[in-house]
Amino acid sequence: MAQPKYLTSDSAAIGEFLDKFDVFLFDCDGKELFKQELQTGVNPCVGVLWSGDHLFEGTVETLELLRSKGKKVVFVTNNSTKSRQDYQKKLTGMGIPSNIEEIFASAYSSAIYISRILKLPAPRNKVFVLGESGIEQELRTENVPFIGGTDPSLRRDMTPADFAGLADGSMLDPDVGIVLAGLDFHVNYLKISTAYQYLRRGAVFLATNLDSTLPMSHTFFPGAGSISIPLINMTGQKPTALGKPSQAMMDAIEGKFHFDRSRTCMVGDRLDTDIQFGIEGGLGGTLAVLTGVTKKEHWESPDASFRPAYYVDKLSDLRGGSS
Amino acid sequence: MAQPKYLTSDSAAIGEFLDKFDVFLFDCDGKELFKQELQTGVNPCVGVLWSGDHLFEGTVETLELLRSKGKKVVFVTNNSTKSRQDYQKKLTGMGIPSNIEEIFASAYSSAIYISRILKLPAPRNKVFVLGESGIEQELRTENVPFIGGTDPSLRRDMTPADFAGLADGSMLDPDVGIVLAGLDFHVNYLKISTAYQYLRRGAVFLATNLDSTLPMSHTFFPGAGSISIPLINMTGQKPTALGKPSQAMMDAIEGKFHFDRSRTCMVGDRLDTDIQFGIEGGLGGTLAVLTGVTKKEHWESPDASFRPAYYVDKLSDLRGGSS
Repeated sequence: MAQPKYLTSDSAAIGEFLDKFDVFLFDCDGKELFKQELQTGVNPCVGVLWSGDHLFEGTVETLELLRSKGKKVVFVTNNSTKSRQDYQKKLTGMGIPSNIEEIFASAYSSAIYISRILKLPAPRNKVFVLGESGIEQELRTENVPFIGGTDPSLRRDMTPADFAGLADGSMLDPDVGIVLAGLDFHVNYLKISTAYQYLRRGAVFLATNLDSTLPMSHTFFPGAGSISIPLINMTGQKPTALGKPSQAMMDAIEGKFHFDRSRTCMVGDRLDTDIQFGIEGGLGGTLAVLTGVTKKEHWESPDASFRPAYYVDKLSDLRGGSS
Repeated sequence: MAQPKYLTSDSAAIGEFLDKFDVFLFDCDGKELFKQELQTGVNPCVGVLWSGDHLFEGTVETLELLRSKGKKVVFVTNNSTKSRQDYQKKLTGMGIPSNIEEIFASAYSSAIYISRILKLPAPRNKVFVLGESGIEQELRTENVPFIGGTDPSLRRDMTPADFAGLADGSMLDPDVGIVLAGLDFHVNYLKISTAYQYLRRGAVFLATNLDSTLPMSHTFFPGAGSISIPLINMTGQKPTALGKPSQAMMDAIEGKFHFDRSRTCMVGDRLDTDIQFGIEGGLGGTLAVLTGVTKKEHWESPDASFRPAYYVDKLSDLRGGSS
């Protein structure tokens, strides 16, 4: 692997870098830290554009610089509970102006994958959803039929009639051909049992993303991967994941934007999600930003599986090219 | 490995077999079948003593024969929702007379393990329970302090205050030193989040058993393993399991009965749970019963990891020794 090129304070190199790409995919997710980092009590919510609730200085200006040069900016997030509209509100709340078309979250990624790539023939193209309203909104956007999700009739205890009705199939919708598992704050035994029965009957198994945890309030809570893992364990089947670093998400982004991969750059702070995602997706470049978890030593280690093409100390260093 | 000895219709061999053992451990669990068997629609509830709701002919008489010869009979089950009392009712309902002291279920196994083997010093010996009342009853029997379980205050949606209170620890009991995960029909996001926070703070991780599924109504539902798997996935930590084939269950049985392993025989229908359990436990013998999933061809295959010492076509063939 070639040595990553350091761009900070090198305006010629930055200018060259910016000229090489038309599209920049930005990682927006707080990260799962390594065990030893967790034990030192480091804030788990570090990232590329912000850390926890703190927007990094120069983030907005850097994004504006890219847009002013005609670059396409895409915010990529594994967040599965939010629709693009919900996520735009979050960005606005962080102080980042954005266009809804610039947002690519795993709920939307899932909807795109189902409608434009998987394309199961009707009527057996209905989705059983484990997840919140963000997923439902995006499925509606793509005209994908679904059941489950936030349906209040599933937010209850399992009864003996449920065991019987799931076993004999009378409680199952014969049109369900897909199970989509995202983060569901209302997960329960009835929903997992129902999803399992659909999978046993041959439904395609999808997951918005497989992150086992959700960084929040300076600690972690169960992530979308905690919803799908019992089903993986029961069926021995792995879902197609629609979040980073799964290439199904890259395919979905391409299904939507039809970009030229060779002129696209993935920007992120983690080698084993973001940089991996960009490299395996055959993108023209990857940029590591050192305001996150990854340090230079990580990719200099002989064990490093992924090495970025470029790196900067902080995202706003990219503004050094235009000065 | 030696060739298993076939006892059916060989009264001399049966007599010799019975003389070798003082204690017989009986597997009582319906089994998870192999994928190909599932697809053929075979009844998943086959076993040693019964199949589904059908008691095999001669089961009661065979157990009586053993008892009349002064043998100790122990019913071993991974069922984690039932206390021994609950389980005795189930046996009675099946038509099998039993003494409560003959029953060893994984909820009881867990209680014994905590109180007699783990023996954490008070006050940090409190258990956070993911599970039903059977576990609570058995913990009470052994005077083990616990919280969680069927507590109705945990059967609700997660609130923003819960995220904050779990993150800052104000909702956590500092005396909790153990998380015990069994089958919980009322599992939810709040309970999994709470258990995770205790594990992050160093609680010992136990599971009643790791069966991913629960055979029921001729199909499968999520088993106890479906409750612990999100926590395993989030922490990267494996719990000590108190069900077959984990040797922690054998230790708990020994902690209770103080039997002589060399004069104890495990009776079961599956090579990779029951027979493995007996062999790894260093028991004097193992008996495979062919009314379950395992066929002779399974252990005759060169890939077979475990081979029983003895086998019979059906349990009641053991009566042939006394005729």
